Amino acid sequence: METLKAIGVGVIHVRVSASAPGKITLFGEHAVVYGKPAIVMAINRRIRVELSRRNDGRLVIDLPDISVKGVRLTVNLAGGSSMEALDSGSAASYALQALKLASEKFGGDLGLDVKIESSMPVGAGLGTSAALSVATLAAYAALQGFEPTREALAKMGREVEVAVQGSSSGMDAAAVAYGGAILYRHVKGDAQIERLSFGERIILAVGYTERVLPTSESVKLVSKIFSKHNSTVIRVLDAIGELVLEARRALETDDIKGVGELMNINHGLLYALGVSTPRVEQIVQVARGAGALGSKLTGGGMGGSVVCICPDNNTLESVVSAIRIAGYTAFGVTEDRYGVMLEGKS
Amino acid sequence: METLKAIGVGVIHVRVSASAPGKITLFGEHAVVYGKPAIVMAINRRIRVELSRRNDGRLVIDLPDISVKGVRLTVNLAGGSSMEALDSGSAASYALQALKLASEKFGGDLGLDVKIESSMPVGAGLGTSAALSVATLAAYAALQGFEPTREALAKMGREVEVAVQGSSSGMDAAAVAYGGAILYRHVKGDAQIERLSFGERIILAVGYTERVLPTSESVKLVSKIFSKHNSTVIRVLDAIGELVLEARRALETDDIKGVGELMNINHGLLYALGVSTPRVEQIVQVARGAGALGSKLTGGGMGGSVVCICPDNNTLESVVSAIRIAGYTAFGVTEDRYGVMLEGKS
Repeated sequence: METLKAIGVGVIHVRVSASAPGKITLFGEHAVVYGKPAIVMAINRRIRVELSRRNDGRLVIDLPDISVKGVRLTVNLAGGSSMEALDSGSAASYALQALKLASEKFGGDLGLDVKIESSMPVGAGLGTSAALSVATLAAYAALQGFEPTREALAKMGREVEVAVQGSSSGMDAAAVAYGGAILYRHVKGDAQIERLSFGERIILAVGYTERVLPTSESVKLVSKIFSKHNSTVIRVLDAIGELVLEARRALETDDIKGVGELMNINHGLLYALGVSTPRVEQIVQVARGAGALGSKLTGGGMGGSVVCICPDNNTLESVVSAIRIAGYTAFGVTEDRYGVMLEGKS
Repeated sequence: METLKAIGVGVIHVRVSASAPGKITLFGEHAVVYGKPAIVMAINRRIRVELSRRNDGRLVIDLPDISVKGVRLTVNLAGGSSMEALDSGSAASYALQALKLASEKFGGDLGLDVKIESSMPVGAGLGTSAALSVATLAAYAALQGFEPTREALAKMGREVEVAVQGSSSGMDAAAVAYGGAILYRHVKGDAQIERLSFGERIILAVGYTERVLPTSESVKLVSKIFSKHNSTVIRVLDAIGELVLEARRALETDDIKGVGELMNINHGLLYALGVSTPRVEQIVQVARGAGALGSKLTGGGMGGSVVCICPDNNTLESVVSAIRIAGYTAFGVTEDRYGVMLEGKS
């Protein structure tokens, strides 16, 4: 396994910044929770976390451009009672949980200034929770003079997600720790990660609408339908698992039309699992109407992001425009090859 | 097997009218073509066919309230060349094919006046082709003094559909011949029909939008995706087959909420097979928004009808109104218990 860019082991720093990319799930979200494979790609949008030591034993988390409840949060570590006030789905709770875990692993106290910046919508199904967790873990480790491997960061990132959400496949944390595109599978507590190399050859747009529910609640929704209509839903998940393997072949052989068709099928299967919404449907349809070869919700669903594959850059522009005209946020995305990175230290 | 209401065998008539109900597929359309079970119910909308002998060797088909190409068609049986001019999907071609088959089986010539009336939209996925075929077969048989069983009429009805469309599961012909609700399965050339008895306990609305493609073309669309993405689509069809069995249990135990959930899942799976359209999606969403417990496209798709299950009659009214306000045709439907019927003879 690769390690993070070396920093002097044992050298304690006073300020470190790290960043991690967002990700899009191209195929297999939700089914991945049930042990099926998924294809996920890190994207060229990042979350940056800067940690600086404080001497007053207070933890101050600053989220200047992230709109969540509790935009500026101060936790008195002696009292600590204000942590309860946090939204379990909010960005701050991932940062807090990551800091808690990191201080257990790497020592040190949480008297810190934490500054979090994002160049993508948060909570949109683009892996911001994982990016924030992994970037925070990497930054804290560096502050304490450690250099965990990507594998270790991915694993700890998953632990943070499990602590905040109750469960996590670990897919997002792996995607943002490694960068690039991967085939991910989580079987019996073991993450299998295989790097894929189609990422620079596909042209993708993302459309975004506000989420009705966070990923953790979407996962519960599917779990409910899984319990109630078990024998049917097991087969739907089987279909998604098989589709992911077909999609892998299509991606690796540059059968972009096939990739688009499989995206459409995957979207229908997510729709069958009950995680689409009328607004997501509108984005999906508008994108197809504007020339996308395929479009599907990506991430947890119940709003959030839609990924669209385009045959060329002109179509990408048309798709982005059409989604914006329909009243939603849209942008092109490309593959991130770097994964989590240390950006500076002093 | 039951027989049609007895008419004197061997007594030749000069005028006979017969009718057959339309149907809605509650669960399992498309997958039924691949040997999976489906649940289908005859509904309280009918097609009536009246046959009267002519002495000039001409066949005149009158379709006063059916809007298809070739509303009034005259075929000179000596020449016969104008039959080529027919639309393969039009109502007239099912009547013609049924008459041709019936005259082979029951003798007699096709010097006839044929009057076809319908109390439901034609080509909407409501089984009008099968109803027209079966009613025509029954009327012609009666004219010649025969009384085929429902089983025989269902089988011949399928033959007519195969001749016109190229293929047919035989489900629609069985539903309209028998009436009531049935579990239908067509395996290795053999139709398995099981009568179900939930029909009078469910409250259903139908919304309708014009079809982009006829059923035969929708079936080809699925067959194309089946060939191209075989291993995935096989699993989607498996999921539908399993869902139908779950739905049967839910219907028979009056778990109407469960029936609705399964309708929504079934709709998602049909969407995954590529047979939904933006307008169908709109009807589906509007119905759910107005209180339907579940809604799905019914029949071949690519436009056509959406079936919605309601918890009570007030909700039925709200759902019908909401679909109409959105600009589509909508009406309540109930179970037809009679199937194909002779209505008069002289």
